[in-house]
Amino acid sequence: MYSSKYLELLVEELKKLPSVGQKSAQRLAMYLLKAPKEEALRLADAIRVVKERVGVCGLCGNFSEQDPCLICSDPQRDAAVLCVVEQAVDVLALERTAHFRGRYHVLGGALSPLEGTHPEDLRIQPLLQRLQSGEIREVILATNPNVAGEATALYLSRLLTPIGLKVTRIARGVPMGSDLEYSDLVTLARALEGRREID
Amino acid sequence: MYSSKYLELLVEELKKLPSVGQKSAQRLAMYLLKAPKEEALRLADAIRVVKERVGVCGLCGNFSEQDPCLICSDPQRDAAVLCVVEQAVDVLALERTAHFRGRYHVLGGALSPLEGTHPEDLRIQPLLQRLQSGEIREVILATNPNVAGEATALYLSRLLTPIGLKVTRIARGVPMGSDLEYSDLVTLARALEGRREID
Repeated sequence: MYSSKYLELLVEELKKLPSVGQKSAQRLAMYLLKAPKEEALRLADAIRVVKERVGVCGLCGNFSEQDPCLICSDPQRDAAVLCVVEQAVDVLALERTAHFRGRYHVLGGALSPLEGTHPEDLRIQPLLQRLQSGEIREVILATNPNVAGEATALYLSRLLTPIGLKVTRIARGVPMGSDLEYSDLVTLARALEGRREID
Repeated sequence: MYSSKYLELLVEELKKLPSVGQKSAQRLAMYLLKAPKEEALRLADAIRVVKERVGVCGLCGNFSEQDPCLICSDPQRDAAVLCVVEQAVDVLALERTAHFRGRYHVLGGALSPLEGTHPEDLRIQPLLQRLQSGEIREVILATNPNVAGEATALYLSRLLTPIGLKVTRIARGVPMGSDLEYSDLVTLARALEGRREID
């Protein structure tokens, strides 16, 4: 049993977070109990503000409290290159690399007829509308390198290439730091197929 | 960069939690963004309530919003057995086992002259006061099985045994599910030393 019912409640709420089990939840709760009051309340406020203020950017479909979002409205970003991803979390992953200076388009998923995800369930119409401005010259398809993501990339490339756009797909191959010996067959085959001349 | 400054703020606050790095913080923030509003706000409220309402139990020194705490004031718990631990988190660990029905006393640390923790820095005076009631017959020393914890247990056993109390120490030995082959020398020596006749 718990010495405090509020502590117990906090542990129960923390346990609902992804990959947080009983022990981690208790450890996090203890940390918050011992932390300076201001620090813990800043976290509580940050959660509340995100839920009360953050919506979706009408252009890219990413989370944002303003429309268009900070990335879509940033004049420093290259408006000619659009990177199409499945989910908002993919934008975070790509932004971590600091290697992309264009803008994004979040589809909200990938095509998977078996799971009932069809083209009309994805933000493909908004994508076509964005392309009508004529500002975008290259569309990078950065959907996941799995069955649904590949199918989505293929579908989009067939849809967009006739418009006269440059449509590219992120490279699939052996990940940096890995051993060829342990690479799976499909990845190795892709790595060979996608080989490039050394500059 | 982030599409939302509130999302960025939330990630920054989540990163301050123990064993939460950049990636985990982003994953947690995304989860909270997508979660039902009520669920996320329940977490925010649970954090706020814990910081605003939870103090310390005057008897055992554990976190509590009432004094005495839920464990100290539970008539179902055995008032004759007192388990002495270093930290409140140890109470949670022992309660998980559901094998102890007595009460606790939180010292708030362990003796470590090198780190500047002396007997007067721990809740030893409150412990002696609790023992004066005569209700407690056994004190279980459940400090950690490391140098500071062992020193604290030794110090307390020398202090409490003359009072005429039964003073016990939790068993130290090979952990369940482990291999003898990989056990360290000190643990194995303890396991031999603490052997018992099979009932």
